[in-house]
Amino acid sequence: MNLSSSALLTDLYQLTMLHAYFAKGMRETAVFEFFIRKLPPNRNFMMAAGLEQALDYLEGLRFGPEELEWVAQSGRFPNEFVTHLEALRFTGDVYALPEGTIFFPHEPVVRVVAPLPEAQFVESRLINLILFETLIATKAARSVLAAPGKLLVDFGLRRAHGAEAGVHAARAAYIAGYAGTATVLAGAQFGIPLFGTMAHSFVQAHDDETEAFIDFARTFPQGTVLLVDTYDTEAAVRKVAALATQFKREGIAIKGVRLDSGDLAALAQRARRILDDAGLREATIFASGNIDEYRLRDLVAASAPIDGFGVGTSLVTSSDAPFLDAVYKLQEYAGRPRRKRSSGKATWPGRKQVFRHAAEGGRFHHDVVTVESDPQTGEALLLPVMKNGRRLAAPESLETLRRRAAAQLASLPERLATLEKAAEPYRVEIAPAVYELADEVDDATSEV
Amino acid sequence: MNLSSSALLTDLYQLTMLHAYFAKGMRETAVFEFFIRKLPPNRNFMMAAGLEQALDYLEGLRFGPEELEWVAQSGRFPNEFVTHLEALRFTGDVYALPEGTIFFPHEPVVRVVAPLPEAQFVESRLINLILFETLIATKAARSVLAAPGKLLVDFGLRRAHGAEAGVHAARAAYIAGYAGTATVLAGAQFGIPLFGTMAHSFVQAHDDETEAFIDFARTFPQGTVLLVDTYDTEAAVRKVAALATQFKREGIAIKGVRLDSGDLAALAQRARRILDDAGLREATIFASGNIDEYRLRDLVAASAPIDGFGVGTSLVTSSDAPFLDAVYKLQEYAGRPRRKRSSGKATWPGRKQVFRHAAEGGRFHHDVVTVESDPQTGEALLLPVMKNGRRLAAPESLETLRRRAAAQLASLPERLATLEKAAEPYRVEIAPAVYELADEVDDATSEV
Repeated sequence: MNLSSSALLTDLYQLTMLHAYFAKGMRETAVFEFFIRKLPPNRNFMMAAGLEQALDYLEGLRFGPEELEWVAQSGRFPNEFVTHLEALRFTGDVYALPEGTIFFPHEPVVRVVAPLPEAQFVESRLINLILFETLIATKAARSVLAAPGKLLVDFGLRRAHGAEAGVHAARAAYIAGYAGTATVLAGAQFGIPLFGTMAHSFVQAHDDETEAFIDFARTFPQGTVLLVDTYDTEAAVRKVAALATQFKREGIAIKGVRLDSGDLAALAQRARRILDDAGLREATIFASGNIDEYRLRDLVAASAPIDGFGVGTSLVTSSDAPFLDAVYKLQEYAGRPRRKRSSGKATWPGRKQVFRHAAEGGRFHHDVVTVESDPQTGEALLLPVMKNGRRLAAPESLETLRRRAAAQLASLPERLATLEKAAEPYRVEIAPAVYELADEVDDATSEV
Repeated sequence: MNLSSSALLTDLYQLTMLHAYFAKGMRETAVFEFFIRKLPPNRNFMMAAGLEQALDYLEGLRFGPEELEWVAQSGRFPNEFVTHLEALRFTGDVYALPEGTIFFPHEPVVRVVAPLPEAQFVESRLINLILFETLIATKAARSVLAAPGKLLVDFGLRRAHGAEAGVHAARAAYIAGYAGTATVLAGAQFGIPLFGTMAHSFVQAHDDETEAFIDFARTFPQGTVLLVDTYDTEAAVRKVAALATQFKREGIAIKGVRLDSGDLAALAQRARRILDDAGLREATIFASGNIDEYRLRDLVAASAPIDGFGVGTSLVTSSDAPFLDAVYKLQEYAGRPRRKRSSGKATWPGRKQVFRHAAEGGRFHHDVVTVESDPQTGEALLLPVMKNGRRLAAPESLETLRRRAAAQLASLPERLATLEKAAEPYRVEIAPAVYELADEVDDATSEV
């Protein structure tokens, strides 16, 4: 069983509910919407990502022989349920915000319209996929806003929560405006540009730091970045400078140096001076080590002469907000709108659409969430992406997604393009038609 | 390419360093150690987990045709490097803390002894695997300490960071003392007990809550848990109570009810009374919804009549500490100890062992970290687990790991078995032999 694509990557209650739905013949059309209930700390907006992986999942959903065998021998379900599972495919329609779109609480990010068992069953993995990339695209967008024009690279694989998190984080960060990643598999799978130099162990394995630099440079003569903080950063930069003439003679281009510890702003100033004095004006300074959007902002404010940054842990774990209050809720079944009224967790019923209104100058002004049957002006954000279980178009290229994300970030109201919570959050209006529908539903399902 | 087992699941710099090592013929024995530099917030200890997955990775490491093809066409490396990669296997030795062992900063959790290219290459994935399960086992252990005797179940798949995180979190939590998980694939892969009931959507898809309860109970007559907070919790529990006689007549056993929102302590009190009054004394009360170890402690302190808890987001993201300052550092190469002296990131050189000393009564008293060649009293914690790239024994069963974890938690000094930082942290002594070795290394590598 391939871990990422197994149909068993779900919660047990999806199987128990499916069994009950099959037993009762409940196969009418259900409408589920994925949305977040509130913004995480420090966030003024979210950026949607992960839709492609979700559509892959829906298109490929099936119980293979090993999975059916497991269900059959689990002792929990009768044989006819296994037969139902064998036939299970996703045959529904999907509407979604295109990846890279900025969105806000209570706005549907994905709407699934399918026979109840299918729409229900896909819940766990759909949330799992979209929540994570959305979390990381949003976190990455914050670095992009904090350090405009800087080269940002995802260095997070080792601290990511497992294999898939490492690869999907690289994708989400690239969509949001990162220049690339160190994660090779993300390059191989998605064509994301790869970056990488050397670790401290490379320097330590050599008896002498200068010897390590020479070995590495000769192996990668077209452009080599040397890590200079294994022992003493300034001394190491002087060694690089001392090698400049020799390297030039050998045809070796020193692309730059990397700092990974210490007072990055001060060290970068000193390194810049040493490199410039040695005629290495083209050599860039790259920094890593506990970088997040706040440190990026401070380093930019201090005019630290750093050209690029490797961002790891904080990015791939979304360290200050490692989860999202994201849910996937039943909004309609068998043609009748539904809602949940649990304390603090009530939902808006019906199939919904988001209309975005721009201010003069093109920046987003406010959104209106309403039911699909309530026509409104503004830009409709949810688009059809899948019909009868098949994609309506080929996957968008990552370059398209990057352009969209950049345009969306450029259209954010300035007060929201900050690292702290804006005093005035973005305005999202719930249209009167939604309130009316909620009242109707409450009346219809009120206790008898 | 299978995402979880691909050799390309690594950082680009591992490949660039390997290329340089092969080019220079640097293949002598290297010793790397995995350890953490400091405890995360609120933590007094860590619990080791993830070793089995790391050993699987090491045993299975190889570049397949697709991966070699990618490297060859990447334009970054010459053909002879691809040939080297094709032959790459892990042929080294591994020493490790058995899973379930409690450990502290600066104590090696895993030591790898292998030819430099192999020992270096496995860094990224090894950290990625062990860090995450260790993080989650530790987080789970906190719930176990906070709610002794309660049934704890992992409900986190949807909020986990991807597929692997969902499955590995279930495993780590089970080792630490959880009763099971809702994640089906974790049951299928590891044999972890599965738990699951119904979602709100099941109730909502029915026109009537009572009808939903009857449908579900008839499908699972052997023991059914009914979710009672979709509309009005108390009203729903009364419906369950009203069904008691009918269910009994039909031979249906009501195993319990689940609360998922609201004031859990108060709702549980009322639900308990209603169930008891209806003769449903055996029916348990299960609670979920934003549970973490602090809420568990409060609910236990309030004597809330809740028998079990579903813990999701906080567990699988280790939400208050979603990362670990874990590293994998070169400690020796070609028979000579090595160390890094970067500001704030210096390491202790040499092959190290941890000796644990118990106080009277058997609780842990303090640990001593020393070099392997320095014999000490106390229990040596690092054990050999792999020789020449092969496991020395079959994987330990999860039951063995659970017993070890439980025994370790029971041996924690009481001041550390708390949810907040202890005023007096656990004592970890760095032995004089380690200081002496560090001085020798510093003298030998001091700048010339």
